Amino acid sequence: MKIILDKRDIDKLTESPNMAMLDLMNTPYITIREFEERDWPAVWAVLEPVFRTGETYPYPTDISEDEARKAWVETPQKTYVALEGERIVGTYYIKPNQPGQGSHVCNCGYVTAPDQRGRGIGTGMCGHSLEEGRRLGFKAMQYNMVVSNNEDALHVWQKMGFKVTGRLPKAFNHPKAGLVDAVVMYLWIGELNS
Amino acid sequence: MKIILDKRDIDKLTESPNMAMLDLMNTPYITIREFEERDWPAVWAVLEPVFRTGETYPYPTDISEDEARKAWVETPQKTYVALEGERIVGTYYIKPNQPGQGSHVCNCGYVTAPDQRGRGIGTGMCGHSLEEGRRLGFKAMQYNMVVSNNEDALHVWQKMGFKVTGRLPKAFNHPKAGLVDAVVMYLWIGELNS
Repeated sequence: MKIILDKRDIDKLTESPNMAMLDLMNTPYITIREFEERDWPAVWAVLEPVFRTGETYPYPTDISEDEARKAWVETPQKTYVALEGERIVGTYYIKPNQPGQGSHVCNCGYVTAPDQRGRGIGTGMCGHSLEEGRRLGFKAMQYNMVVSNNEDALHVWQKMGFKVTGRLPKAFNHPKAGLVDAVVMYLWIGELNS
Repeated sequence: MKIILDKRDIDKLTESPNMAMLDLMNTPYITIREFEERDWPAVWAVLEPVFRTGETYPYPTDISEDEARKAWVETPQKTYVALEGERIVGTYYIKPNQPGQGSHVCNCGYVTAPDQRGRGIGTGMCGHSLEEGRRLGFKAMQYNMVVSNNEDALHVWQKMGFKVTGRLPKAFNHPKAGLVDAVVMYLWIGELNS
């Protein structure tokens, strides 16, 4: 599947009940499609500086390229890339957050290329993932560990309808700030009465 | 390491700040030690009926013995068995809940043989896991998915000092009750001022 976030799609997306997508009007015209094997070098170029800094995701800062590929591409159910023209400017994955009786709740991780932040690419990927999550049959989406001082992420996820449903004291060992709280965020994406 | 929960140990455990261990006085004299290869058939006999029922853990109810072994013994950092005499009456695992910057928080899962419930074995295993978690260098313990209608478990974990830090609406698809909430529970086990 290939989704181009042009005006028509944005109009369609804004009909979805859980999403406050007004800010998506500011999103560059990015294309989001499923990851293909040839994308890996460009995806790793997006992920590596973020993982090495280690301020937003709990991946070891010395994670190897192979381990990163396993975590981002092999373990998840699906992985996507966000493109502006030919350039990969962001990537996200989706997977069940738990097996069995918890498998109707999905989990996603999103990374935007550091030099592309603030352009709405994370918002666009999140909106895309909510639609994909529904299409894949998931009923809710959960983020297990949003670092409490990552205000940009908190702002975007809340704008998209996520609620902070839990706070984990000192659960993230931030390379600069030390032990900081993390929060659990959750959004029901199934039918509202199911 | 082998721990026998006799009176002396209980006295020692009750000195730990986070634990209200009074009810542990009612725990049978169980022995808890690390899992050994030869234990698997008896451990599987404890796990299988609980996983097949599927009311407390999100493992698929049709999980294979191999998948169960992977989840309970191979993936975790360590696995333990609780014995009464020669009989394995319970088992638990411990592992980091997240990699990297979240790896100071551990996660445990506990299962008591169905015909041994209500005898304090879960409480004993939880107390043992808190000590082991400290010994292994973890600073906190987190349960990601406690099923909200599993009142016995909620009671025991709260008695041991855990707080409900998050509620996940309809996150568990209970075989009898349908979609029910799950809660996230958390306990700091490091130094109180760290």
